[in-house]
Amino acid sequence: MSSIKTVVTGGSGFIGSHLVDRLIERGDDVIVIDNFRTGRRDFLNKKAMLVEIDIKDTSILQNYFDGANEVFHLAANADVRSGWDDPRRDFELNLERTICVAELSAKAGVESFIFTSTGSVYGDTNQIPTNEDYSIKHQTSLYSASKYACESFLGAYTEANKFKLTVMRLVSVLGPRYTHGHIYDFIQKLKHNPSKLDVLGDGLQRKSYMHVTDCVDALLNLRGSSKFEVFNLGQSDTITIKDSLSIITSQMKVKPQINFGLSSQGWIGDIPMILLDISKAKSLGWHPKIGIAEAVFDTTNWLIENDWVFGQLNSENKE
Amino acid sequence: MSSIKTVVTGGSGFIGSHLVDRLIERGDDVIVIDNFRTGRRDFLNKKAMLVEIDIKDTSILQNYFDGANEVFHLAANADVRSGWDDPRRDFELNLERTICVAELSAKAGVESFIFTSTGSVYGDTNQIPTNEDYSIKHQTSLYSASKYACESFLGAYTEANKFKLTVMRLVSVLGPRYTHGHIYDFIQKLKHNPSKLDVLGDGLQRKSYMHVTDCVDALLNLRGSSKFEVFNLGQSDTITIKDSLSIITSQMKVKPQINFGLSSQGWIGDIPMILLDISKAKSLGWHPKIGIAEAVFDTTNWLIENDWVFGQLNSENKE
Repeated sequence: MSSIKTVVTGGSGFIGSHLVDRLIERGDDVIVIDNFRTGRRDFLNKKAMLVEIDIKDTSILQNYFDGANEVFHLAANADVRSGWDDPRRDFELNLERTICVAELSAKAGVESFIFTSTGSVYGDTNQIPTNEDYSIKHQTSLYSASKYACESFLGAYTEANKFKLTVMRLVSVLGPRYTHGHIYDFIQKLKHNPSKLDVLGDGLQRKSYMHVTDCVDALLNLRGSSKFEVFNLGQSDTITIKDSLSIITSQMKVKPQINFGLSSQGWIGDIPMILLDISKAKSLGWHPKIGIAEAVFDTTNWLIENDWVFGQLNSENKE
Repeated sequence: MSSIKTVVTGGSGFIGSHLVDRLIERGDDVIVIDNFRTGRRDFLNKKAMLVEIDIKDTSILQNYFDGANEVFHLAANADVRSGWDDPRRDFELNLERTICVAELSAKAGVESFIFTSTGSVYGDTNQIPTNEDYSIKHQTSLYSASKYACESFLGAYTEANKFKLTVMRLVSVLGPRYTHGHIYDFIQKLKHNPSKLDVLGDGLQRKSYMHVTDCVDALLNLRGSSKFEVFNLGQSDTITIKDSLSIITSQMKVKPQINFGLSSQGWIGDIPMILLDISKAKSLGWHPKIGIAEAVFDTTNWLIENDWVFGQLNSENKE
């Protein structure tokens, strides 16, 4: 019996590399498309076949998609916060590349397309927790706009019966191999200067982090019955930036003076409170097994033990 | 006193040229950006300043946006139905160009940005009439996906206080200078062969056409109080394709044998029934003055009297 062929874009990234490990474990032939813009070579499973390329090179890629059953499209610009530094970045790296992958998948006759979106597509909402049927008002960042735009275009692909789509709207994900985002930034700054930390926003923003193990469980197993399915993935509770910092500083054994900002927003388009209603995913058997504090703890530990990632970032991602 | 500077993209198109006429009438200095992909030179008001260029050439265009108060972004791929012939077309012509115009407007410090979206962003909904707060499920065509994606990106621009945005979600618009869409196609086919007409779909799809005069009234005058405002524009009732055809054939004095298709969808992604709830626009003083049947009648008359447009289309828009 021949094994299942699975394509993972961004398969050397934080979430992608964990997903690839699990797919290899279950016996899939895994093709990873990655250009190491965000991903790390050290994270990539040696048993996966790597195609090191920009997704825009679709003529070269078609061959690798042909015959695949499932496509997990995780490659994306992971820098959520600085969209305005280059307003075309989210458009090109998230949306344009997603349309390339959709076309490749459609031409290849892929059955199932799994896309990682973001809980920030709900914007600054008063409905907390927010469920998948919430009537979305407007996008607050170029990042969330690009992810929601991907959902729009992929929806048209499902309507034309190109493939079945599962959209996962994620909260921030933590765990081993976490190499971008504000907790990473905090730890990096504290390593450089353990006595002082400047924090964007007032520290009271509430975040509902999910552990990467739980996230990958959902990516692998959570499927609905219709051709366009959206699932919120997160936790049922939240933690403040302030409380996260307590865990981090105690773990790092540092006692910095922390200077908070005045705004409830950490950056333009930041959403002070993200709490997703995850009952739809739960009703299909998925539930997060690792709590928020444990996820912060685990992440901090991993970053302390793997401080080579900070150095590698500096030398590799210079753009 | 210096006059108001206004930029209209697609200002030589069907809706755009009517809008420009009205802006000139009220005394604005109007700059039209158009590349005549869809627009017609004959429609363009002679008093407008024309910049004949692809919107992608932003470095050349910035100068024309500087100092503008309002930007009306109407330029778009107008071929709603054949998105799958070239899956990148809607993405490039609608979304990518919109992001260019958003950037130009943001850099120019434009106060007010008016964007023409589509009632088809609601998809195939059970909530009829559909209001602006409807929780959108998924997009059914690449055209609607691209327009909804524009709304997403423009939303991020308003969140970053780049400009105030008014999104108009339109039903199909009819009237003089109507030069694309299924009524145009019907009349063109009937001119070629008055004895027979093949129609996509079963003829029972209901459409809620609006007259271009009513549309332009709204574009000019309808503004909300928040920085991101969405308005449905349409009619309170509908007409079937079948009944439209009765008006057209009687007007043209032809009696064709009409062959309907079997499906309630005219094409992949077609929505059998679009009826927008226009009470929000009405509450601010706008209301459609011209009925649907009259709009079909007026359009047919204009196309009979201006049959040069059919010839010009064949020689100009070959792609």
